[in-house]
Amino acid sequence: MKLENITRPTLHTALSPSLLHLYDVSSSIVVIIDVLRASSTIANALYNGAKSIIPVDSVAECIKLGRQMDVVTAGERDGKIADGLKYGNTPLQYTREFIKGKTLVLTTTNGTRLLHMALAEGARAIITGSFCNLSAVCDYLIAQNTNVILACAAWKDRVNIEDMLFAGAVISRIKSKFQQDCDAGKISETLYHLAKPDLFGFMRDQQASHYQRLMSYQLEEDIRFCFTTDNANLLTIYEAGRLIAGK
Amino acid sequence: MKLENITRPTLHTALSPSLLHLYDVSSSIVVIIDVLRASSTIANALYNGAKSIIPVDSVAECIKLGRQMDVVTAGERDGKIADGLKYGNTPLQYTREFIKGKTLVLTTTNGTRLLHMALAEGARAIITGSFCNLSAVCDYLIAQNTNVILACAAWKDRVNIEDMLFAGAVISRIKSKFQQDCDAGKISETLYHLAKPDLFGFMRDQQASHYQRLMSYQLEEDIRFCFTTDNANLLTIYEAGRLIAGK
Repeated sequence: MKLENITRPTLHTALSPSLLHLYDVSSSIVVIIDVLRASSTIANALYNGAKSIIPVDSVAECIKLGRQMDVVTAGERDGKIADGLKYGNTPLQYTREFIKGKTLVLTTTNGTRLLHMALAEGARAIITGSFCNLSAVCDYLIAQNTNVILACAAWKDRVNIEDMLFAGAVISRIKSKFQQDCDAGKISETLYHLAKPDLFGFMRDQQASHYQRLMSYQLEEDIRFCFTTDNANLLTIYEAGRLIAGK
Repeated sequence: MKLENITRPTLHTALSPSLLHLYDVSSSIVVIIDVLRASSTIANALYNGAKSIIPVDSVAECIKLGRQMDVVTAGERDGKIADGLKYGNTPLQYTREFIKGKTLVLTTTNGTRLLHMALAEGARAIITGSFCNLSAVCDYLIAQNTNVILACAAWKDRVNIEDMLFAGAVISRIKSKFQQDCDAGKISETLYHLAKPDLFGFMRDQQASHYQRLMSYQLEEDIRFCFTTDNANLLTIYEAGRLIAGK
């Protein structure tokens, strides 16, 4: 190993929540990646002025907080608005007119669960990442100079393509500042370079499972939004139980 | 879904032993994939006339069986011959002159452990797969017309490139006979098509972790052997505690 590598922080990619335990979470910044659609919704809501987002594990907890506090409750299960909640996981819904100054309580199938896993394992810091805030994520990771785990939310623990593509996009931008002894990250970057000219078209051509699911709900516009780079470009960081816009 | 799809068996790819539980093992043939090098060694030893191979979990169990029976004991830990064993996990070692008519007791870091997981979860059948016996594996899977899980042994549960490449090779040959709603498989096939013109070169260019590890042990010849298609082309199937050559 070259001397210069020894001092660089590590960069790992966990392709599923079931693989997170393989990495040293407590020494790392964990990036929660749920491209379709939790992390895109989080970026867009905070970008449009939401005060904060409280991620919760269950629909019941979401409803309970909605009764106790002046908040917007939202969440999905299996890609649809959950029973008992009014709003879903469509990033386009969280316009400035709707969400500015409000607190959002959000529960999703995969993303919020992974965030709580990272928290339970003592992550040094937790941020969320999506194409919507790609540059902000990369700038932050480079500035922190700390070990990083790119943690894909996947779909019920099954590896998915879109979260790998985002991990690959981050890796392609930051890898020169890190040590990366991680095949999962290398594969993700290779896929990202293949897909980069047309991310939406790549998802379509691969017949990605989440692409098919969302298209069957007529959510093409959502997918296109979630694959647009830096359209809600701010850092989204978890602090004291809430996701907030980074300084 | 088209009517013709309903009757097709399913095809899933588990990229790590930690992801095997996500799939319905008990209705499936499980293909144990440990390209570098357990499944290549198994194919080559049986191809060269080994009577059977007994896969065991621990070095201690391997040594114990060696004392009780007239067998060749072999195994590696972290890519090197394990303490107390005479032979390792180099497929090239198992020539016809050496192994014909003998029973091999084998323990490896990842492959034998995964095989025992599949067994514990009640797999319908278990075979091993490597580029060395690619055609035999594909012919068998098509003939059985049953659900299939391509199970990658990975490296201490971390996803690796070489096992994905083999999964992709199988998928590219058999997918028309199966339903495949599995992003992990689609990614594997995409990677395989990229890598196919020069599998060894792809591993080198990606700086795959196992490529680097084996090259540092001067095992380039092993890697090249393990990426040669059909050089030990027979079915290797698990029956009554042993891996044997298929009929």
